[in-house]
Amino acid sequence: MTHVRIVMVNTTLPANIGSALRAMKTMGLSQLVLVAPKTYPHPDIDALAAGAQDLVEKIKIVDTLEQAIQDCHIVFGTSARSRTIPWPLLDARPAAELSMDAVITRQQEIAIVFGREDRGLTNEELALANYHLTIPVNTDYGVLNVAQAIQVICYEMRMATLAQVQNDQASSDSQKMQVTEKIEMDWDEPLVNHQQMEEFYPHLEKMLVDIEFLDPQNPRLLPLRLRRLFGRAQLDRMEYHLLRGIFSRVQALSHGKWKKTALDKEEQSDV
Amino acid sequence: MTHVRIVMVNTTLPANIGSALRAMKTMGLSQLVLVAPKTYPHPDIDALAAGAQDLVEKIKIVDTLEQAIQDCHIVFGTSARSRTIPWPLLDARPAAELSMDAVITRQQEIAIVFGREDRGLTNEELALANYHLTIPVNTDYGVLNVAQAIQVICYEMRMATLAQVQNDQASSDSQKMQVTEKIEMDWDEPLVNHQQMEEFYPHLEKMLVDIEFLDPQNPRLLPLRLRRLFGRAQLDRMEYHLLRGIFSRVQALSHGKWKKTALDKEEQSDV
Repeated sequence: MTHVRIVMVNTTLPANIGSALRAMKTMGLSQLVLVAPKTYPHPDIDALAAGAQDLVEKIKIVDTLEQAIQDCHIVFGTSARSRTIPWPLLDARPAAELSMDAVITRQQEIAIVFGREDRGLTNEELALANYHLTIPVNTDYGVLNVAQAIQVICYEMRMATLAQVQNDQASSDSQKMQVTEKIEMDWDEPLVNHQQMEEFYPHLEKMLVDIEFLDPQNPRLLPLRLRRLFGRAQLDRMEYHLLRGIFSRVQALSHGKWKKTALDKEEQSDV
Repeated sequence: MTHVRIVMVNTTLPANIGSALRAMKTMGLSQLVLVAPKTYPHPDIDALAAGAQDLVEKIKIVDTLEQAIQDCHIVFGTSARSRTIPWPLLDARPAAELSMDAVITRQQEIAIVFGREDRGLTNEELALANYHLTIPVNTDYGVLNVAQAIQVICYEMRMATLAQVQNDQASSDSQKMQVTEKIEMDWDEPLVNHQQMEEFYPHLEKMLVDIEFLDPQNPRLLPLRLRRLFGRAQLDRMEYHLLRGIFSRVQALSHGKWKKTALDKEEQSDV
């Protein structure tokens, strides 16, 4: 994503610049522009940007926000609160989708501008933006710091990029399989919880040992495979009791404690 | 979102716990569980969790991961890399959608488990999860630290919550909800097809008749329940052959054609 730049205005803490670089690199962004940084260069930036040295070397330093965004087609100003007059406002997700569309279909340049640690962007700076960008947070406690906000927005940029790539590929190429699962919500029985399943697996394994299907001295991957299978299925209470009933019957059979007679109505009574 | 807990295993740095609390509070989550933390309590946690003191007071400390998740219905283990055998894997976004749906429609308990700063979760810990959860990152540089990963996942949880609220407002007509989830995974074995399953169910039922757990004259809902269970699980080829091997062993036992002797290596050979 060479067409999307992150712009930080008057940043004070080197740690925030380092974190921004890490977040960017992780999500595939590469261009950071610093507008009149308070502390730059600083050894902490290199330390915190561990592994993102190539991005450190690409950092551009400019004096004014105007210089940082002059060649951009779409500028987003990040803002936690509403300003003097309403501005076109986008959440991080639609902002990222809009950006990726602009980059891919029109090769436009995008800037996402972040303000000072203590007071964000000024009204004048926000007025330079095409859109204001906000991250939907808990309104009782709306305090993402600048590093966290950059993290979230870079993540949305990556998600939007991946979505575009997936749209382009006609889903035929790879060896990956896609499984579409429909989960019906009005289930007739409650699902069992983790604790119950931790009684289920030992019972299943003991039964398999009893019929000598599982060698306790050399279980190989069998217990893990069964755990994966039933963990994926998420048993409900009825299924759970049914299966444990079956295990107990097989165990009784293997111990010679149960022999084929009439159907035991008791065990099936709840089905 | 009181039904979603964040679980951190063997965390070393107080700063990461503080950051996690801030990220959680910002996104509306409140329950943090620490499994055998290396440094707790620590003054840095309170300093870094500024404004999230109510969450600090709610922190639960437990000795084992088992204790942290025992009452949970869905457990996500976060993982950056693939393990011994593939596990159902969800990206952060569908994982959050699945979680919110489970919470809102079924009041289920969800845990999202994060590992150690240096080496994540062990294979044994990951095997306790229903799903593995991953954040799609730049594969050349896939290193989100634990605080960043928690930030992204808490953000997706909030986005999924807001989407649910919007859905409720938009369509209050039906109480049924269907969520279609895409689960993408690099599975080690192909999934079996419908035809193979149509051989599987009769085999299972015949085995249950042989051990007189199923009355063919009066099967009630038992065959249907088993069909739903294994249909939901979507067996892969290995699981399929394992289960059919177990059925055959139980049948041989019930017919007196097989008696407990040495382990039959043949049946387990592919596991």
